Amino acid sequence: MNRYKGKSAFPSIAIGKIMVLKKQENTISRTHIDDTGAEIERFEEAKKEALLQLNDLYQKACKEAGEANAAVFEVHQMMLTDEDFLEAVKNIIELQSVNAEYAVSVTADNFAGMFADLDDDYMKERAIDVKDVAGRVVNILSQREGTANHFEEPVIILAEDLTPSETVQLDKEKVLAFVTKSGSLNSHTVILARTMNIPALVSTDIDILEEYNGVLAIVDGHTGHIYLNPDEETLSRIKEKQAGDLEERKLLQELKGKETVTKAGQKIHLYANIGSENDLGYVLQNGAEGIGLFRSEFLYLENRDYPTEEQQFCAYKKVLETMGGKKVIIRTLDIGADKQIDYFGLEREENPAMGYRAVRICLDRPDIFKTQLRALYRASVFGNLSIMVPMIISAEEVTRVKQIIQEVKDELDEDGMKYCSTEFGIMIETPAAVMISGQLAKEVDFFSIGTNDLTQYTLAIDRQNPKLDKLYNPHHPALMEMINITVQNAHKNGIWVGICGELASDLTITDTLVSLGADELSVSPSYILPLRKKIREM
Amino acid sequence: MNRYKGKSAFPSIAIGKIMVLKKQENTISRTHIDDTGAEIERFEEAKKEALLQLNDLYQKACKEAGEANAAVFEVHQMMLTDEDFLEAVKNIIELQSVNAEYAVSVTADNFAGMFADLDDDYMKERAIDVKDVAGRVVNILSQREGTANHFEEPVIILAEDLTPSETVQLDKEKVLAFVTKSGSLNSHTVILARTMNIPALVSTDIDILEEYNGVLAIVDGHTGHIYLNPDEETLSRIKEKQAGDLEERKLLQELKGKETVTKAGQKIHLYANIGSENDLGYVLQNGAEGIGLFRSEFLYLENRDYPTEEQQFCAYKKVLETMGGKKVIIRTLDIGADKQIDYFGLEREENPAMGYRAVRICLDRPDIFKTQLRALYRASVFGNLSIMVPMIISAEEVTRVKQIIQEVKDELDEDGMKYCSTEFGIMIETPAAVMISGQLAKEVDFFSIGTNDLTQYTLAIDRQNPKLDKLYNPHHPALMEMINITVQNAHKNGIWVGICGELASDLTITDTLVSLGADELSVSPSYILPLRKKIREM
Repeated sequence: MNRYKGKSAFPSIAIGKIMVLKKQENTISRTHIDDTGAEIERFEEAKKEALLQLNDLYQKACKEAGEANAAVFEVHQMMLTDEDFLEAVKNIIELQSVNAEYAVSVTADNFAGMFADLDDDYMKERAIDVKDVAGRVVNILSQREGTANHFEEPVIILAEDLTPSETVQLDKEKVLAFVTKSGSLNSHTVILARTMNIPALVSTDIDILEEYNGVLAIVDGHTGHIYLNPDEETLSRIKEKQAGDLEERKLLQELKGKETVTKAGQKIHLYANIGSENDLGYVLQNGAEGIGLFRSEFLYLENRDYPTEEQQFCAYKKVLETMGGKKVIIRTLDIGADKQIDYFGLEREENPAMGYRAVRICLDRPDIFKTQLRALYRASVFGNLSIMVPMIISAEEVTRVKQIIQEVKDELDEDGMKYCSTEFGIMIETPAAVMISGQLAKEVDFFSIGTNDLTQYTLAIDRQNPKLDKLYNPHHPALMEMINITVQNAHKNGIWVGICGELASDLTITDTLVSLGADELSVSPSYILPLRKKIREM
Repeated sequence: MNRYKGKSAFPSIAIGKIMVLKKQENTISRTHIDDTGAEIERFEEAKKEALLQLNDLYQKACKEAGEANAAVFEVHQMMLTDEDFLEAVKNIIELQSVNAEYAVSVTADNFAGMFADLDDDYMKERAIDVKDVAGRVVNILSQREGTANHFEEPVIILAEDLTPSETVQLDKEKVLAFVTKSGSLNSHTVILARTMNIPALVSTDIDILEEYNGVLAIVDGHTGHIYLNPDEETLSRIKEKQAGDLEERKLLQELKGKETVTKAGQKIHLYANIGSENDLGYVLQNGAEGIGLFRSEFLYLENRDYPTEEQQFCAYKKVLETMGGKKVIIRTLDIGADKQIDYFGLEREENPAMGYRAVRICLDRPDIFKTQLRALYRASVFGNLSIMVPMIISAEEVTRVKQIIQEVKDELDEDGMKYCSTEFGIMIETPAAVMISGQLAKEVDFFSIGTNDLTQYTLAIDRQNPKLDKLYNPHHPALMEMINITVQNAHKNGIWVGICGELASDLTITDTLVSLGADELSVSPSYILPLRKKIREM
């Protein structure tokens, strides 16, 4: 038995086999090849195999998602039979005496660059396709596994680190726990684990070795330990602890449907944060009174191109319908910073957290923003929708967002489409927004304080930088003062204010947040019932 | 004649020849070599040439800087005659049939890695040496110029962008103007130009072509234009404008030695920001009443290893002596973020501006901090010194800094060294510091508001990201409110407060800053007299 220690994100227990998630190797080495004829033959074989795979995928997608969605695999097949492409690859192998992997990836880069430079949206998209296809062929040549991480039974995921786009690809029903070697307690893995009620360890002192695949392990979120090949005694001790957790959770279940109100009679709305429509089950299961933060990014992260109005409409409609008449606050697109999406074509930035992101992108590219807003307003007739805009720093931004919303409404009117009036709010997550919250409160229906970003800007500490974990103090008096200013300004102007960062789920600070006057707390589903218990006892 | 447009940093004019500053190429391509014998021969030749260069440098350094400082070139020579190193290079060329550039750089990486892993400070330093030597050999092999940018006559520097460490290497007396293709108005190039009273254009729509070397050009900082090969008419028109500038500057000179006081009798201290002891000339020439911000980083940026206590002591003493009894505020080390120094061995960060920097490093590595503090206190007897600490976010940090200062004083007492009592202040440049400024004011003698960083954290905008220039509003009402809070809290506690960011030199906001109650403004030397004029007319 081996024991390792990490920082625990959620106090629960998982027992299961390990699945090591290896990063996709991106580097292609260039090696000298003497027998170029044999190398070309190797390329031909890989090409054939890729075509077979693509055909399978096409058939499968047709059945599961319809012909339109499957078409992309047909396009990939066409590329792999394109004479120009094939000639270019072979030429490089022959003339430069190099390996096929190198030749394929250079050719793909060249073709993608060519497509991307064309002033034609259809061809621009093909740039991504050609890289995808090349990736497939290179993986076959190098006998690498693709990014697909499929697994039959539920597993404990062990990885160096997980990016938001990697977690989006995971089959979440099969995940028992996350254990990562890097990452901080403010990373997305942690937020995900808290949504899912499962344990997660970050900054763990374990090496990520292939040989751990399939090894039995225990993750104890109470102590922050992971045990590999646990002995019988440990196993039975932990199982007992797990039974205790279960018992406690059952007791909490009795709080479902009850009001969240302090003994003094102060009513607090307890809403859930979710990252995708797939989290709805957790929301209902934990008795949330509504959704306080629906991160709409997932629609964009999951897709390989801008999600259409129809795709978004369906997702929003589903959430609104499922939640019945309960409040659903959907945050408009918040990408950039640590959430990068290839097809947006964003440039690399020195400090992405203080970069081109969220509403800054939306106001620059109203086409993308309008598609989302149209989908939101069309969905508004199916439930109780509120719309919330992230990263606001000025009243001018709010004015511009409202102008765009009006344009969208006018267009919907013209198209004869119905929509309801919705509450319109903004995130207060920059120090600038706090300082001018008196002015902003006159322009919106509600505030939601995003403590994660607000804390990092206020303290000038990247919350994902593990080197600064010990300085990152979410209880910092400056933060409390900023919450105070925001709540005062909101109430003075007759609007309500919620808190939707991780701070809202910190039971040791609930007293303070309630006494500062927060009207709503929005937290990961797993924290709803413990928080309700805490507030009812206050 | 060709005309290009950029964003101007300073309204003055330069006429002269262009010097193109090319970035050192860092990528080494790996190419297949058939005749490995000839390639080894090529390597041997380059090695010989490198040894000759090193010998010249050694002789020159001995004469100019003494034997101790020249020793590094001897070490480099020894490395280039090390049998293990030479064998490794030749082996790679032979066995892998690759080019010498590649073999040298791979070997250097391997050796440097090996040295760096050793638990021996001397050997760790050798890791940097071996890379330096390899760089020299690769440059010879590729017939590249090294980083040295020497020029005989004063020139207009044309570059993609300039990092702080690149500007440190420039011979500033030979620079007439800076023109960069990238960079924003908040970059270090701009700060440097404003210190030096010379024009600078950033974000200029000009390509950086080798062929521009030596071409006659005009930089007009009033309009933001650069003219290549200007025609006679333009040249004479601009020369006239330049004469006008000179006339105006002469008029301003009459304000030297006069008080900076509004008509209503409010006295403002006008101090200068400087980046190195070499800027002292500009300070005196422009009639500054003191130094409000001496950025001590230059001592670290210029050096290839931690500057010794003695080196620092000499620099601080020189500044204090030169300034006579005038106030000199020296800011303790502020590296990290965009100021990276190799020998600190800092890890790459996702968001360096919100990363491991300034006082965060100093408190983690008290050895470095103490060396600087010892030098500062020892120098304190030579003038009117104040010490200022950057990037404070909490009262605990101030307490810890004070503890370390006390330790330094105790040690100096033990060593029988003299020091004076100095004013002790902190930068207010994080929103956190603003919010708790009431508490912090009880712990220090003065505040200096660093508006550059404060603005970027408040607005969540990296000030060096040109993509966000249009959102970066240094007059944002949130900023004004933060300055207000800080000044109020300072005055309530009987301490004075200055402003030392670029905002302080913005003549369009001087009214506001003075009416908010700022006691001091610290600006680039070139702004002292225009600012004095403005305030005297208020």
